[in-house]
Amino acid sequence: MTETINIILAGPRGKMGTEALKLIERTDHFNLVGCIDRKHNGLSVKDIDNLPNLDAPIYTESSEAFDELNADVLIDLTNPEVGYDNTHLALLHHVRPVVGTSGFSEEQLSTLKQLSDENQTGIVIAPNFAMGAVLMMRFSQMAAKYFPNVEIIEKHHDQKLDAPSGTAVKTAQMIQDVRQTEQQGHPEEKETIEGARGAEYDGFRIHSVRLPGYIAEQEVTFGQTGQTLKITHSSMDRYSFMSGVQFAVEQVMEMDDYVYGLENLME
Amino acid sequence: MTETINIILAGPRGKMGTEALKLIERTDHFNLVGCIDRKHNGLSVKDIDNLPNLDAPIYTESSEAFDELNADVLIDLTNPEVGYDNTHLALLHHVRPVVGTSGFSEEQLSTLKQLSDENQTGIVIAPNFAMGAVLMMRFSQMAAKYFPNVEIIEKHHDQKLDAPSGTAVKTAQMIQDVRQTEQQGHPEEKETIEGARGAEYDGFRIHSVRLPGYIAEQEVTFGQTGQTLKITHSSMDRYSFMSGVQFAVEQVMEMDDYVYGLENLME
Amino acid sequence: MTETINIILAGPRGKMGTEALKLIERTDHFNLVGCIDRKHNGLSVKDIDNLPNLDAPIYTESSEAFDELNADVLIDLTNPEVGYDNTHLALLHHVRPVVGTSGFSEEQLSTLKQLSDENQTGIVIAPNFAMGAVLMMRFSQMAAKYFPNVEIIEKHHDQKLDAPSGTAVKTAQMIQDVRQTEQQGHPEEKETIEGARGAEYDGFRIHSVRLPGYIAEQEVTFGQTGQTLKITHSSMDRYSFMSGVQFAVEQVMEMDDYVYGLENLME
Amino acid sequence: MTETINIILAGPRGKMGTEALKLIERTDHFNLVGCIDRKHNGLSVKDIDNLPNLDAPIYTESSEAFDELNADVLIDLTNPEVGYDNTHLALLHHVRPVVGTSGFSEEQLSTLKQLSDENQTGIVIAPNFAMGAVLMMRFSQMAAKYFPNVEIIEKHHDQKLDAPSGTAVKTAQMIQDVRQTEQQGHPEEKETIEGARGAEYDGFRIHSVRLPGYIAEQEVTFGQTGQTLKITHSSMDRYSFMSGVQFAVEQVMEMDDYVYGLENLME
Repeated sequence: MTETINIILAGPRGKMGTEALKLIERTDHFNLVGCIDRKHNGLSVKDIDNLPNLDAPIYTESSEAFDELNADVLIDLTNPEVGYDNTHLALLHHVRPVVGTSGFSEEQLSTLKQLSDENQTGIVIAPNFAMGAVLMMRFSQMAAKYFPNVEIIEKHHDQKLDAPSGTAVKTAQMIQDVRQTEQQGHPEEKETIEGARGAEYDGFRIHSVRLPGYIAEQEVTFGQTGQTLKITHSSMDRYSFMSGVQFAVEQVMEMDDYVYGLENLME
Repeated sequence: MTETINIILAGPRGKMGTEALKLIERTDHFNLVGCIDRKHNGLSVKDIDNLPNLDAPIYTESSEAFDELNADVLIDLTNPEVGYDNTHLALLHHVRPVVGTSGFSEEQLSTLKQLSDENQTGIVIAPNFAMGAVLMMRFSQMAAKYFPNVEIIEKHHDQKLDAPSGTAVKTAQMIQDVRQTEQQGHPEEKETIEGARGAEYDGFRIHSVRLPGYIAEQEVTFGQTGQTLKITHSSMDRYSFMSGVQFAVEQVMEMDDYVYGLENLME
Repeated sequence: MTETINIILAGPRGKMGTEALKLIERTDHFNLVGCIDRKHNGLSVKDIDNLPNLDAPIYTESSEAFDELNADVLIDLTNPEVGYDNTHLALLHHVRPVVGTSGFSEEQLSTLKQLSDENQTGIVIAPNFAMGAVLMMRFSQMAAKYFPNVEIIEKHHDQKLDAPSGTAVKTAQMIQDVRQTEQQGHPEEKETIEGARGAEYDGFRIHSVRLPGYIAEQEVTFGQTGQTLKITHSSMDRYSFMSGVQFAVEQVMEMDDYVYGLENLME
Repeated sequence: MTETINIILAGPRGKMGTEALKLIERTDHFNLVGCIDRKHNGLSVKDIDNLPNLDAPIYTESSEAFDELNADVLIDLTNPEVGYDNTHLALLHHVRPVVGTSGFSEEQLSTLKQLSDENQTGIVIAPNFAMGAVLMMRFSQMAAKYFPNVEIIEKHHDQKLDAPSGTAVKTAQMIQDVRQTEQQGHPEEKETIEGARGAEYDGFRIHSVRLPGYIAEQEVTFGQTGQTLKITHSSMDRYSFMSGVQFAVEQVMEMDDYVYGLENLME
């Protein structure tokens, strides 16, 4: 992949957007042709505080951006409302969207898929850009077919409000899809302190650790007499999503159809 | 899978063979119809010291066993020489072989494949019955496509002679098959004590820990800025191979062709 | 420590007792002078099935054993009732007891301590001979002084009935002794599936994993912004207790007083 | 500890110094009375870019700072040359120094100790402020007395130049101090790929992993037949040192003598 990819970025001032600008800046074959932002119309990226020193025009109106710029890919890191409009417009202009959201409705997804088919324009919609997390979930699902005894331990910083984490629940669902329901543990096991055995999900258990010093970690352990198989993913910062963004941008250049979820881009 | 599977076991007194007898004994739909052993012709399994209380005749001549017994599957846990003859005979008698060996020559494998095709009789040859280890290697290969930075740490008891372990080298080969060669680590990194950075394999590193208290463990860690993905397999005893034997026996009943390696039975 | 230590073993046919016989057999400076057993009076150890080939007389009456044998140490691996009588007798005969039990009453312990003082005879009473577990608990207590944020995860085979494990509760108590009570986690954290956050113990959490493939493992993790400290003990078999028995026997030879708990033998 | 501690900070613009300013800012009973810096004489901390909004005067001449300010503690995070002069001056003025350096000579240390004694002024010199790392080393030394079989695995980012890390070598030295020299592993073990068994240090092994995604992690594993004990420290950022600085400041207020190494402040 040595040909330059011309990119429009929507949402350059958000946390993810700023990381994406840095990704574009340090990737030789990525070229920023413009940004879509609700502020700063007519300025250049390099004029904005805390943004990288890239010379590319900012548009408040996305339609203008697509009309005036010659782009291969739209990276959209805004929100479901704005993002849907940007994505729709991009497909109309044969610009391939890479969108980071889990917020589109079934109807919106269906419209985008149809438009992608009609215009033979590739599109990637990714609720999660962390490739390591995507692989962890996929491997867990594969292992669960052969190792039905499983528990999930997820560890996060102690400012997190919900337990279990969204990733743990998503992993549990993917395991449930392939695992025959079975109540694990001894039938007469008992908790001498309530909650010791964790949260029950379809007969297996999820445990949530909350400690300062952790950022986000999950281990999925499969057990069979005489052996255990454990898949652990640990992520430290937002930066870890950027390899997923890069991967999606490179893949979408080779596609003329619709893909939902990074896992479906991986063989 | 509720129909009874009639099984001939070759090598009942070896370490793996004895475990396989116990597997057959505790598995409802497995039925031992006879054993092939170089000793004890005409006796029953239950007559032999330290073997389970199963009533099944022992044959010293394998041809007699295949002539006289009505079997679905041969489990062969002998050695490459005897095992080849048993396997060949089994296929001729339309008995599906499940063979645990990495010792067959290319020519032997090719003959067995051809015979399997001609007789439309399924056969599974498995160098490694540890399903957890097979999955660990497979996941490692899959991950290496997206995470080229990898190191392997294997931990064994301190009576082990070779370092790295065979499983570590096999894992490294499978990673090498999909990973673009790249020298990892800082180009100017230096060892202040020789060997600190471990064994080099195609630009990445393998570390061998030897301590009493370990039996066999391997962790394969993939790193990317901001995240790590780790796959860990730990096996404690020979018993851990038996789920792989059971899986292979059940799969071979549904097959009419040749499969090498348990990984090729897994979707 | 090269001088030979003459040992009476009480309870040679129990699981721990048999391991202790093997320990004595393979330790050069340990010498078995006799056994106390409720059966087999007058026979020798080597006459009993499944016991090591040691030539030492068996006594059903402990008083006879102490009268007739010239011993330095009694290893008692029986039960609290029999064990108390044996231990009491040993002290009267100036034989140093090493006793593996948590079952003595406060009154019994007090009597034994007094007798040890009067006779200036060392005695070690150890509820837990696993030195690794003892160190794990001790380190956990030390760390808790400086790292008050802690969670315990214990992992056992799925035939275990109680959760949390006894070791986890004991560790939690030892942490509680030095840690100021504090409710960990976000004050508004909520479980979307009940039990996710584990068992609460004095404001911190204990999680119990039950999977085939595990034997007994515990990790105690301390967290502070930017760092975690984790202490993990994993034990695989009864054999792991024997280094603790050996250590206690060697230490008791140097003592003339009463010690409860292996941790108090370690500096 | 509720009484306010008045602090002079030397080196406010360094990486550690800036973190220390933030520590002082968020700690209720810490009060910054002034800074020593080689620039910005006469300005206030809040006037300097990227420093916290604290109103405290900056001195280029340390002697002026000690003459004019009423301080309890000096936190010195400069370098060995400047740091020695500051520390010496502080002791003369009965201001308790907390110094983060391993760079003082034996002679300098001896002079500072003598001055501390004469003036009955507490002083803490700490080569390492990471309390978790200090505990990891201390626990490792304690465990090595009872578990002589040990290996160290340290994991760092792939921009690190030296292998093994300084912390790993320091840990190895502390283990060596209490462990009888013994060549671990099988006497006939052999490396089929050179370096697999890692760096040898007094008969045991150190392994250095270098992968993006890691920051700084070390695991020290002790093995005995049937059990392993592992101590793992993971640190993510400079911030993790600040709890050690806070601890040292609070401790030095209670002291009138000289302490080298944070481990000697911990019971």
